[in-house]
Amino acid sequence: MRALIYITPKEGILDPQGLTVGKALRNLGMEEVASVRMGKYIEMELPKISKKKAEEVTKQACDRLLANLNIESYKFEIVEQS
Amino acid sequence: MRALIYITPKEGILDPQGLTVGKALRNLGMEEVASVRMGKYIEMELPKISKKKAEEVTKQACDRLLANLNIESYKFEIVEQS
Repeated sequence: MRALIYITPKEGILDPQGLTVGKALRNLGMEEVASVRMGKYIEMELPKISKKKAEEVTKQACDRLLANLNIESYKFEIVEQS
Repeated sequence: MRALIYITPKEGILDPQGLTVGKALRNLGMEEVASVRMGKYIEMELPKISKKKAEEVTKQACDRLLANLNIESYKFEIVEQS
C-alpha cells in the first residue's frame, strides 16, 4: 500500500511562509493570488500489509512524528501501489 | 477558485529528508514503513476568476516560483471554493 498524507497549518494559525510566497507571486504579476497556505505532502510506502493495517500505521506516524498537532492538521488516503 | 498543488521530488532524485523521516519512523517501531518521500502541499486562493484562468495562473506560479523543476515535479487540481 501507499499512504498519501497532506499536512496543513490549522485554521487561524499564522503561516508566515504562505504569506511570503503569496506576496512574491503577486510581485511577479500574479495578482489573482489572494492567499497561499503552505503544507507538506508525504508519500509513504507500506508494502505487504492490509489496507486496515496501513491506515493504523499512517495514523500513528502522523500523530507521533509527521504532524505537529498543536498547529497542524492532517488527512491521508491509502492507495494500492502503482 | 482554489488550487491544490502537490510538489514531489522527481524519481531518482535523492530525498535526504524522506530517508531521515523513514528511519525515524522505523526507530519508533513502525517497521512497516519501507520508504518516505517528502514533498510540499500548497493551497492557493484565486477568487473571482474562471477555472481556465485559475489553471493558467497556477501553472505559472508552479513554473516560476513554487517548484524547482530541476529536481521537483508538480501536479495540481482546481476546485470550487468551499
